This record gives sequence, structure tokens and C-alpha cells, in this order.
Amino acid sequence: MKKHEHILLAHGSGGRMTSELVESVFLPALRNPYLAPLSDSAVLEELPPGRPALTTDAFVVDPLVFAGGNLGKLAVCGTVNDLAMAGARPAWLTLAVILEEGLETGTLETLVESAAAAAREAGVQLVAGDTKVVPRGKGDGAFAVTSGLGVVPPGRELVDGRIRPGDAILVSGSLGDHGATILAARHGLESATLRSDCAPLGGLVERVLASGAAVRSMHDPTRGGLATVCNEVAGRSGTRLVLDEESVPVRPEVRATCELLGLDPLYLACEGRVVLWVAAEDAERALEAMRDHPLGAGAVRIGTVEASTNGYAPVVMHTRSGGDRPIDVLSGLDLPRIC
Amino acid sequence: MKKHEHILLAHGSGGRMTSELVESVFLPALRNPYLAPLSDSAVLEELPPGRPALTTDAFVVDPLVFAGGNLGKLAVCGTVNDLAMAGARPAWLTLAVILEEGLETGTLETLVESAAAAAREAGVQLVAGDTKVVPRGKGDGAFAVTSGLGVVPPGRELVDGRIRPGDAILVSGSLGDHGATILAARHGLESATLRSDCAPLGGLVERVLASGAAVRSMHDPTRGGLATVCNEVAGRSGTRLVLDEESVPVRPEVRATCELLGLDPLYLACEGRVVLWVAAEDAERALEAMRDHPLGAGAVRIGTVEASTNGYAPVVMHTRSGGDRPIDVLSGLDLPRIC
Repeated sequence: MKKHEHILLAHGSGGRMTSELVESVFLPALRNPYLAPLSDSAVLEELPPGRPALTTDAFVVDPLVFAGGNLGKLAVCGTVNDLAMAGARPAWLTLAVILEEGLETGTLETLVESAAAAAREAGVQLVAGDTKVVPRGKGDGAFAVTSGLGVVPPGRELVDGRIRPGDAILVSGSLGDHGATILAARHGLESATLRSDCAPLGGLVERVLASGAAVRSMHDPTRGGLATVCNEVAGRSGTRLVLDEESVPVRPEVRATCELLGLDPLYLACEGRVVLWVAAEDAERALEAMRDHPLGAGAVRIGTVEASTNGYAPVVMHTRSGGDRPIDVLSGLDLPRIC
Repeated sequence: MKKHEHILLAHGSGGRMTSELVESVFLPALRNPYLAPLSDSAVLEELPPGRPALTTDAFVVDPLVFAGGNLGKLAVCGTVNDLAMAGARPAWLTLAVILEEGLETGTLETLVESAAAAAREAGVQLVAGDTKVVPRGKGDGAFAVTSGLGVVPPGRELVDGRIRPGDAILVSGSLGDHGATILAARHGLESATLRSDCAPLGGLVERVLASGAAVRSMHDPTRGGLATVCNEVAGRSGTRLVLDEESVPVRPEVRATCELLGLDPLYLACEGRVVLWVAAEDAERALEAMRDHPLGAGAVRIGTVEASTNGYAPVVMHTRSGGDRPIDVLSGLDLPRIC
């Protein structure tokens, strides 16, 4: 079987060269009993009891490979995490890629191997895929879209409507690592310590839920960061969220990158962090459960839910100097192609 | 809410402008109780009994709008059809789009409205979505990826391994209409009659299966056309497929386009046709069931399954002149961006 050094348009034709690409690059990394890349659909086992959850995400990150991850790992983690946030146990994933003619086959192999490794870590199987190729100058290396099917076990309900004044707001680790890493790379500001937090959160989430803590809802602060997630949650739950500046964890290298680029870490994307809303009396239990897991070692409480002020400053930061600063939703151009 | 005439990078930022785009373009067309475009996952009802089927497809068709369809309609039909080919009743779809900065918002509205209309026709709901924007020159107007979840009812099994010598090969209508329409448009060869066959096949498939005909397997001849599908099926079923040139339906305008462009209609993509392998004694019953459905009005028998010749010319065309012409799989550059 002939392997080309670069992706050619014919690799997306659906004919012999598409098969060769699938067999030489995708199947060696992803092979499993359900994978049906050349068939029409993957036909699976019956799902365990519960409500199915379905999600999709497109990934157009630039650069394709960055400290701590790459497009392939990100595409798997992003979708696994979207399922986990809904309380769903991720079961099956699909992966579609849109490649630009001329992409190095070695780069594609790196992306696919990382996707496979992330899927193994998350305990999910990639069961269906598709590859398309667009001419040089009509794409940008590679784009990826993953979709995920999971099951929310009976009795589990994580929705923002359950959030009540008095609840604690927790985060599983430092904020903005992914966003700062991508933006630093784009500006030639790489540092030895800056590294994306990109990781699959299913295991961490199951650990917290198994602790018995009354978790109301959770979200991963991706595009738009903590600030955007908090504004969405405040809107949907009809509450006010008060964050404590002193407690919000931001690594010094992330803070330094933000200062250089004129950014606020509260708006930077994470790809391996979860923000949780938990009954106040269970906050410590939830934090301990998270800290028992490698991905939750830096878990802390960052704020408290208060009663709504009827839409006036629904999210505020209690600052080090003792004031309250309103935290608005991201608007304007901001941060394209972060994921 | 402000609506811009063109897509801006900020529409993919995940912040306020992303919400505005979702609320002004996607939600009006797609609104349904499950749609969770700004949430992490759509949490659905328990599935009916049977095995879940999952599929994904990327669509990079050029041009975005063509006679008989557009990217949005194609993206829904392609995934509905992949589910239908596996015998799955399509239940839920996801839609991710990758937009190029500068795309006209009106074009995006057309694509989304067509996707919504195709979903209604197919009886499926689009329950999750994602929108990303890449800078001008890093994409090409719009790409779309749909994923689909369906259920194969208990006892239904459509696999190529069930195909036996003697089985009849049927097709639901004329071949190559979609591929010819796209290629004609790209070469400025539009004709008044050329029109893509793009359509959701779930209803037609259920009609045939309900007839009681012993359907072994079915496939939609998309990229690579009838020739490619037949070669894949011959390989997987260990049989030889003999097609009858006289019976293979190709419209005169499709044949004319092929002659102008030096193409063979056997390799042109269809997006609304199904090829079926059926027990010989049930061929007429299956054809009648198809002809009762608007999408199967042109259904005909095009060939017969024979015993394997151990890989030698696994697909042959019995020609008008009485000879047998081997039909090879598509190889080389051929037809990019047909879907």
C-alpha cells in the first residue's frame, strides 16, 4: 500500500486512495470492533439504562500542535467533556476531518494517534469517521469535528435550574492554561512552563458524583472562559454569582502571558477544567473527591451563589482591594481559533 | 439584536456574537425541545428498543448552492441516508459548521433553512450544534459536519455478508444526477434539466422493508458512485456482481455532461439513491414497494449476484454489445468536493 508524504486531493475522493489513507493512518491507531469507517454507520450494542446525551463540536485550533496537546487530542477531550458536563457517561465518539491538500501525512498521523490515546484515557471508542480533502488555500491544515453519544444514568440530573443561593462554586484547577498556551504560540511567546490543560474529564466527574456531594450543575469553561460560563449560568439559574479574586487560581506564567498580550485570564479557554455548583455543606466533600484525582489536584472553591439582583451585574468579582467588579460576557473579536 | 451582513471572526468567539448568530440564524429554523446549542450536550429521551447506530459525515461541496440542493440539505440527507442504509431509523442529528470569515449571512440562512427543511422531511430533529469561524482564506465559505443517531429495530440485519449468488441488484432511480449537477456547475455547464437527486431516504427504505422482501443489504452510491459501492460490496460479501448495461438508468442530460467532461456516470455520486441486494424471488415485490414512493419512482433491477471468481473482476458490466467489461474501483484524483 502506497503511503504519500503529503495529503493529496485524491485522498478525499472516496475511492482507492481514501481507503489507503484510512487503512494506513486511521485504522492502525483506532481499530476496534465497531469502527466502520468505510461502511455507512456503526451499529452498536444497546445502551445501558438512562437518557442518551448527544453533542458535537468543531475544532479549528491554530496551531495544530501545541504544548500539552494537538487538534486530535483536543477534539476527543472537548466532546468527552461536553458529555461529562451533562452527567453523561461517554460511550461512543465519531471523528470527521477536513484536511487541506498538502498537509504532511506525518502530522495527520500525530493527530490521529493523539485522538486514539485520548479516547483510551477517556474509556470511549471512536466508532465512525469521515475524511474530506479541500484544495490548498481552501482550508488550513486540518479541521476536526467530533460527536459523542453518552448515557445519563437514571436519577442523575445536572441542570443550572437546580442552582440555589448559598451554593458553593468550585473549580478543578487553574484557569486559562489552554488559551494562554495557544495565544502564546501564535505570538511566538512559548515558555518552558506554559502548557494546555487539555484532558478528558469523565473520570474526574464520576469521582465527584460518587462522593455523594449534592452537585447541582457543572460546565467546562471553554471558549469565553470562566467569565462567559458564569454569565450563562447566572442567566439560566436566575441567580447572582460572586467570585473571590483571591481564590481564583491562575498560574503565574498564564498571568504573565495575559499581561503581555493585554488579556484577562477569566476569558481564556480551558479544555480540562470543570466549574461546579455544589450545595454549600458538600463543598469540602466535593473538593476532597476532586483532589484525589490527578486532574483535580488543584481544586478550590472560588465563589458563592447569591440571590438574583434582577439582571444587574449577574456576575461580580470580589476584588483583593475589597470592591466588587462586574464580570461581563465576552464581546467583540477576542480570541478566534482557540479550539 | 444586531445582525451583520457577513460572518465575522467574532461570530466564532464563543461570546456574545456567537450567541447572537445562533439566536438570529440557527434557532429560528431549527428550534425544538432538545436543541441545546449553547449547552454542553442535548439530553434526550430513552431510545426505542434495538441497537443504536451512529454515523458522521463531513461535507465540503463546491458550489455551496446547486440545482436541487445546497450544503445544508446535503449534510442532513447524507447522514440520514447513512443511518437508513444500516437499517436504522434516524432519530437525532447534530450539525457543526465551519464558516469562513466574510460568508454572506444570507447564504448561511439559506443553508440552515434547507437543513431544517430536510430534517423535517426525514422526521429527525437536529439537537446539538456548533459554529466555528476561520479567517478569510483559511476556509471556503462553509463546511458542515453532521452526525446521526438512529436505532436498528430488533431482528433487522442488513449486512453485505448476507448477500448470496442469485440475489438481484436493484437501484431506486437514475444514477449520477448529483455528481453531474455539481461538476456541471463547476464547469459553467448548467442545463435546465440537470438537478441533484439529494433527498432523505429513510421513508423509502422503510417502505421496502415493510414489503416483506428479503433485503440482504443496501448502500447509497455516494462518493465513487455505483462502481465503488459494488466493488466494496463484492469484496465484503465474497461474490461477483454482474451489472446489465442496458438496465442501468442514466438520464440523457447526465450522460451528455459525462461525455463533455470525459467522465463515466458509474463513478458519479448520488445523494438520494439506494442500491439494494434482494433475494431473486422478492425482486419484483421490492421494486413495486419502491415505485409506490416518490423517491423510488424510477426503481429498476440492474444486475445479479454470481459466485466469486476469487477476486478476478469482481464487478463486471454486461455490455449492450454482449461483452463483459470489468468495473474497477475509482482511483486517482477524480472528483473532489462532490459532497
